[in-house]
Amino acid sequence: MISEKLKSLFKNNEFQDLGFGSKAGGSGRLLNRDGSFNLKRKGQSFLQSFSPYHWLISISWQHFLLVIVLLYFTMNLLYAFIYYFLGVETHLAGAITNTEQEKFMEAFFFSAQTLTTVGYGRISPIGFFSSFIAAMEALTGVLSFALVTGILYGRFSKPTANILFSDNAIFAPYRNINAFMFRIINGRSNQLIEIEVQVTMSYTTREENNTTQRRYAQLKLERDKVNFFPMTWTIVHPIDSNSPLEGLSIKDLEDADAEFFIIIKAFDDTFCQTVYSRGSYKSNELLSGVKFVPNFANDPDGSTVLFLDKINDHIPAPLN
Amino acid sequence: MISEKLKSLFKNNEFQDLGFGSKAGGSGRLLNRDGSFNLKRKGQSFLQSFSPYHWLISISWQHFLLVIVLLYFTMNLLYAFIYYFLGVETHLAGAITNTEQEKFMEAFFFSAQTLTTVGYGRISPIGFFSSFIAAMEALTGVLSFALVTGILYGRFSKPTANILFSDNAIFAPYRNINAFMFRIINGRSNQLIEIEVQVTMSYTTREENNTTQRRYAQLKLERDKVNFFPMTWTIVHPIDSNSPLEGLSIKDLEDADAEFFIIIKAFDDTFCQTVYSRGSYKSNELLSGVKFVPNFANDPDGSTVLFLDKINDHIPAPLN
Amino acid sequence: MISEKLKSLFKNNEFQDLGFGSKAGGSGRLLNRDGSFNLKRKGQSFLQSFSPYHWLISISWQHFLLVIVLLYFTMNLLYAFIYYFLGVETHLAGAITNTEQEKFMEAFFFSAQTLTTVGYGRISPIGFFSSFIAAMEALTGVLSFALVTGILYGRFSKPTANILFSDNAIFAPYRNINAFMFRIINGRSNQLIEIEVQVTMSYTTREENNTTQRRYAQLKLERDKVNFFPMTWTIVHPIDSNSPLEGLSIKDLEDADAEFFIIIKAFDDTFCQTVYSRGSYKSNELLSGVKFVPNFANDPDGSTVLFLDKINDHIPAPLN
Amino acid sequence: MISEKLKSLFKNNEFQDLGFGSKAGGSGRLLNRDGSFNLKRKGQSFLQSFSPYHWLISISWQHFLLVIVLLYFTMNLLYAFIYYFLGVETHLAGAITNTEQEKFMEAFFFSAQTLTTVGYGRISPIGFFSSFIAAMEALTGVLSFALVTGILYGRFSKPTANILFSDNAIFAPYRNINAFMFRIINGRSNQLIEIEVQVTMSYTTREENNTTQRRYAQLKLERDKVNFFPMTWTIVHPIDSNSPLEGLSIKDLEDADAEFFIIIKAFDDTFCQTVYSRGSYKSNELLSGVKFVPNFANDPDGSTVLFLDKINDHIPAPLN
Repeated sequence: MISEKLKSLFKNNEFQDLGFGSKAGGSGRLLNRDGSFNLKRKGQSFLQSFSPYHWLISISWQHFLLVIVLLYFTMNLLYAFIYYFLGVETHLAGAITNTEQEKFMEAFFFSAQTLTTVGYGRISPIGFFSSFIAAMEALTGVLSFALVTGILYGRFSKPTANILFSDNAIFAPYRNINAFMFRIINGRSNQLIEIEVQVTMSYTTREENNTTQRRYAQLKLERDKVNFFPMTWTIVHPIDSNSPLEGLSIKDLEDADAEFFIIIKAFDDTFCQTVYSRGSYKSNELLSGVKFVPNFANDPDGSTVLFLDKINDHIPAPLN
Repeated sequence: MISEKLKSLFKNNEFQDLGFGSKAGGSGRLLNRDGSFNLKRKGQSFLQSFSPYHWLISISWQHFLLVIVLLYFTMNLLYAFIYYFLGVETHLAGAITNTEQEKFMEAFFFSAQTLTTVGYGRISPIGFFSSFIAAMEALTGVLSFALVTGILYGRFSKPTANILFSDNAIFAPYRNINAFMFRIINGRSNQLIEIEVQVTMSYTTREENNTTQRRYAQLKLERDKVNFFPMTWTIVHPIDSNSPLEGLSIKDLEDADAEFFIIIKAFDDTFCQTVYSRGSYKSNELLSGVKFVPNFANDPDGSTVLFLDKINDHIPAPLN
Repeated sequence: MISEKLKSLFKNNEFQDLGFGSKAGGSGRLLNRDGSFNLKRKGQSFLQSFSPYHWLISISWQHFLLVIVLLYFTMNLLYAFIYYFLGVETHLAGAITNTEQEKFMEAFFFSAQTLTTVGYGRISPIGFFSSFIAAMEALTGVLSFALVTGILYGRFSKPTANILFSDNAIFAPYRNINAFMFRIINGRSNQLIEIEVQVTMSYTTREENNTTQRRYAQLKLERDKVNFFPMTWTIVHPIDSNSPLEGLSIKDLEDADAEFFIIIKAFDDTFCQTVYSRGSYKSNELLSGVKFVPNFANDPDGSTVLFLDKINDHIPAPLN
Repeated sequence: MISEKLKSLFKNNEFQDLGFGSKAGGSGRLLNRDGSFNLKRKGQSFLQSFSPYHWLISISWQHFLLVIVLLYFTMNLLYAFIYYFLGVETHLAGAITNTEQEKFMEAFFFSAQTLTTVGYGRISPIGFFSSFIAAMEALTGVLSFALVTGILYGRFSKPTANILFSDNAIFAPYRNINAFMFRIINGRSNQLIEIEVQVTMSYTTREENNTTQRRYAQLKLERDKVNFFPMTWTIVHPIDSNSPLEGLSIKDLEDADAEFFIIIKAFDDTFCQTVYSRGSYKSNELLSGVKFVPNFANDPDGSTVLFLDKINDHIPAPLN
């Protein structure tokens, strides 16, 4: 019985927790394919959990630009009202003031010209009050755009790994036994150095009291670190007698609600920083009795050609 | 006798110093709950210890903005005096110069328009001297705001961990023995990776010569590292026969002026940097004979729900 | 037979893969002298692999400035067309509008003055439409230059190591045996701290089925880490009985298509960051029966003089 | 004989090289007290070794500001000449052009107003040529100040440790033996975490062929890492029978031209980065038969007071 085997495995293995805890994740997957967690957070007010920097760094570019444009208009509206109530005719030299609408418009665009420090000067502040407000607005503008500058560049230069995973993890023949394998490629043409990989299997067992417990077991890899990563790397867990996968079928893994977590850590040569990538395979993403086909060729000019679109190519291969 | 037990413990343990030294901290706590040290520094002049960057990065946002605004006004005042003494009528074209007050005001606002590079141009420098001063002021402005830009963004993007600690550390039953436990949650919704935790107990012993010595002992944890930290993590020190806490009551710990130091290290996935968090528990923050209640639930949609406000929830549980 | 020896070596050594895979690199070198890989990537659309940040950080300074100037002109052209079609006479106050050509020119330069926020004001927007476009253009300008600011500085401050390698790696007498050696110097006068070096030999073996397999063997170094790196560092692999080079001639290495990969890791004291450097020697860059000549001298004033141009100096030295 | 003892020590110890090499440093010190190396680099052209970023980050603030001001004037001069030769009367609207001198002055200040994007507009470009040059100058200005912004902030925020070392290293009684000791304090009030220290002794031996060889031996420390560093840390090398210092006097160390190198590595909590500090003691900075006096006291309010100016305080203490 699968549950028995996995439970016995757990006996010698009990603290290999990835940090999810032993009762988490009833039926769904814990880690989504994109590396995010299938988790909701409650019981914290918006303000307690809100971190403006994390938010502005993480939202999409469309949302980010929308936020900037909205802030820009809001600030201009605010200052426009101030200039408008001070009196455009007397406080803004050069403004066209035939109608109330025109007055507000001139105040608004004068504000925009001050906030961005473009300051054409057709409209200019005259007298203490508007000059003072304009001086504060110019300061506000410089400081606000300073912050935007930083966030914009922070977003743009945020170190991220773009690791391509093969769609499936496979059970393939390997030497005299079988192995659990998947392939990864660097999706960018920059260099990753000193790449480390960890694969953890998560599964559930049914306890005596009929509750479900989630267990974790780290899979021993043929090789868990390489110095360079210019090519495809096939990550291999040999299913020997010590493997928690020994004797299990894909059906067994489905029954145990198994999930394979992958953590990849590397040094990015362009960002000069450590980057992480996460991924996971659920049991419906497993294939058995196939092997991967090499996805590179030697070019006549002496260099090697890597085919990124062939990362999933596999052919039937009977298991041992 | 508690003192004897802790002293004998120290014999085999003597170099586990956290860096506080053996005579520090008579009666108060060494490490405040917010992670700062209960320490005063003397014998160094202000200039020797003053680091502008550390200061500007560390002060509150209110103070920081106040500093910026004060600097802005001071610089404008300074340049206003220069233009004023050069002579506003002859050196600033376009300025309104009916009264001395108006002259100074125009000089001040011209300065502000130059420093922020808004340069409306209603007032503009004419002749060598004011043009030269204005050229230097514009350079000053660009350089000053460059520095402010950097510090503003440095403050905003400073990698910080926001780890929530349970209010109390508890003595709870654990397998066949008891354990010292506390819980932590990531206060932000971003991801922390490869989290490591160290717990050190500090206590005082009375020496033969009747002096008090402060000792340190690192507590062995059931698990001191997890890969992910999306959920609550209960940090557990099993009180087995090797534990310095074996056989001690909360009263004993109070007598020995015990304090538990926690250092947490993690990789922040948004900042792409290593972050640290510190915390501590004094003996009056300990509870005995209780256990924590799980603070998450499985959602019908397959995801897991985490309740951050239930981090402290506990129920009575008789010790073994 | 060389192939036999190297094949037997591989038996005990089989997972020392640098990340190139065992079938890569038919005839050419895998790693170019400048540290780049001799590799082509195919099967990925341009957009999939394109990372603007990596591209803008990696292109040459000439190309980078060209990209900036082209973008600047394109954006100005775009906005100039908008102002031109709105009508320069009615929407841009102060513009000279005798001919169509002049109108477009004034629109173009007004755009440039807005985008850079210089805003002289001889030409200024009048009415809602041009004022609105100008307000958006000023915002665009500030945001674009914010991004350019970041990239410009990112390029300028990108941590890079400038390690000079000796042109040749040599086989030299060493104690009672021989050794494989090469020399490195820090090409900059800044300090590198905690320098680590790894040397891996790659070679091909002919298999039973007449295919060629590429193998890897890490070379054990006399010393693989130093704390400081102010001087020349001679990296030494002693060719003892455990060395994969034992008994091999340069001719043997040529036949096995050998390549020596070097990875250097250090902490840069100026950048305060970890930097990496790569290098490689092919068999035609090896010399046998020579030794390096010291390239420093003691100055009469007590300091040491390092001659960077003498890094390659060597004299004949019969092998043991 | 000292030389014999140190030579025999070297036999079992021969690869403990810090990276200076065995023949370096005849008579002077290798590492200056400020952590710089006593070394001259020759044989490299200026351009080969020149790294603008390293230079601009490393020069003093006075030199840096001088460089900026000089560049600013040079660029304005250059552009002023262009406008001047185009013809100020016809190409710069609003300029005062009574004398040639005035023309050049107006061209110069118009350039300054363009480069800083202040753009008052009293003087403004008119016609294609000056408008085009001004558009390019504004772009140049924005890009140049972008670079200056980055460097300015890079200088300001450069992570540096400010570790205070005691003036002398001492030989003091320690338990039943003696020890080599010195003290360090964090010169800033920010926090350093996970501080590691390495102490290496360097000395010369006279070889059979009457040449001098420089040797290195790492000193084993009582404790080489602490978690926090709020107080004074006394670094202690116990002189037991395994110590290279066993049985040696200060006179012996002088004869052997001994130097003690200290490398300190820590994580700075404000910069969120790893910082390094270097130091060294020559034999004339050693004291024997003294011990350090504690330089802190317990405050009545429960906190601890640290006296930074008492780091050197010591009293006589006969050696064991």
